[in-house]
Amino acid sequence: MVTYKLYYFNMKGRGELIRLLFAASGQKYEDFRIEKNDWPEYKAKSPFGQAPYLEITNGKKTMILSQSVAIGRYLARKFGFAGKGDEEQAMVDMYGDQISDLLNEFAKFMMEQDETKKQEIFQKLQNEIMPFHMKFFEAKLAQSKTGFFFDSGLTWIDLYLFNLLGLLGDQRNQLFEHFKAVKNLYDKVSEHGKIKAYLETRPETAM
Amino acid sequence: MVTYKLYYFNMKGRGELIRLLFAASGQKYEDFRIEKNDWPEYKAKSPFGQAPYLEITNGKKTMILSQSVAIGRYLARKFGFAGKGDEEQAMVDMYGDQISDLLNEFAKFMMEQDETKKQEIFQKLQNEIMPFHMKFFEAKLAQSKTGFFFDSGLTWIDLYLFNLLGLLGDQRNQLFEHFKAVKNLYDKVSEHGKIKAYLETRPETAM
Ligand SMILES: N[C@@H](CCC(=O)N[C@@H](CS)C(=O)NCC(=O)O)C(=O)O
Ligand SMILES: N[C@@H](CCC(=O)N[C@@H](CS)C(=O)NCC(=O)O)C(=O)O
Repeated sequence: MVTYKLYYFNMKGRGELIRLLFAASGQKYEDFRIEKNDWPEYKAKSPFGQAPYLEITNGKKTMILSQSVAIGRYLARKFGFAGKGDEEQAMVDMYGDQISDLLNEFAKFMMEQDETKKQEIFQKLQNEIMPFHMKFFEAKLAQSKTGFFFDSGLTWIDLYLFNLLGLLGDQRNQLFEHFKAVKNLYDKVSEHGKIKAYLETRPETAM
Repeated sequence: MVTYKLYYFNMKGRGELIRLLFAASGQKYEDFRIEKNDWPEYKAKSPFGQAPYLEITNGKKTMILSQSVAIGRYLARKFGFAGKGDEEQAMVDMYGDQISDLLNEFAKFMMEQDETKKQEIFQKLQNEIMPFHMKFFEAKLAQSKTGFFFDSGLTWIDLYLFNLLGLLGDQRNQLFEHFKAVKNLYDKVSEHGKIKAYLETRPETAM
């Protein structure tokens, strides 16, 4: 029997993709939320000194995996959310990396402490970067028969984009006026049976 | 028969991982180097308006794949450089994402136009970011029996880190004084039969 323990902070951030994959699959895991004060202790256990990381125990063997997307892809393959066949998996990965590029831009905004710079970054994000990426997602999703990125059904990139949209707050509704298929994906993931149940019970956090 | 055509600029940058994978596998492909003036035309063909992208033709079907790491992983799986088994592949992906995080920091330095800011970024890169990442790579490589990241042999992350180190220029030798196993990886990849032949004939480019 394999057991899983996820280490992340009490926020959605880069850890939530992993939680959503556990939710969608129905696989049990321990959702360990690190308190800020305890971080130095857990940082030392992490492969690259960062969170999220996942402890996977299979009998006597324990493996610690870090990097949110690498963890996400690994679980997606185990649980059947990685896409069908080598070519579709490569396309899924391609969209995944594009979402990461956008998330990295978004993280710059989240991390900026200086209020003037933060406003500058926000303007660029809202007027340039966000629409630039969204138009590609919109075009792909608008062609979809299922409302997900790929006709074969839910994959990890649907969850990954759903979470990013969830982090946007008020900005999201503004975006949805221009990107209807993206809004539809957001609604579809929210309504997905197991995900819906998870969303109703997950801890409320700002980010 | 499958044919491949790579679209990228006449530089190593984010396209070289793909070229190194073709070299290591001995697979023929067209290495199309876009002239700056022609970029608007080729940008329009790219899934996300960026390069590198790879055109894969299999009989009558053509697929265009973008995002350097997604392309790299796809080819690595085809050619046997993705790691053995799900768990090792996940670990390979984890190191891959870590190298991407470092490459993204390095790209900030490359892209900065303002000389003062460029110097600031360089100092931070040299004194903090580079050593922070390298110590993890060093620890892993120092344990290796083969000199590559994983004992099963060459994987795409060896080529990915090799290329990043290649982009560093003079800084590389300074780094190598402190990170001997990283230096050893660099030398091992340089001496790898098919890679060596490719390195001797590839176009000379600054980046
Ligand atoms: N590319 C990594 C980034 C991980 C990352 O930036 N983690 C942050 C939280 S979102 C962290 O651990 N910060 C605390 C620290 O670096 O000490 C991933 O996707 O997992
Ligand atoms: N994350 C992407 C980044 C691609 C990227 O930044 N491409 C640059 C060149 S290295 C580009 O196409 N620049 C020209 C443009 O954006 O018009 C990847 O790894 O492929």
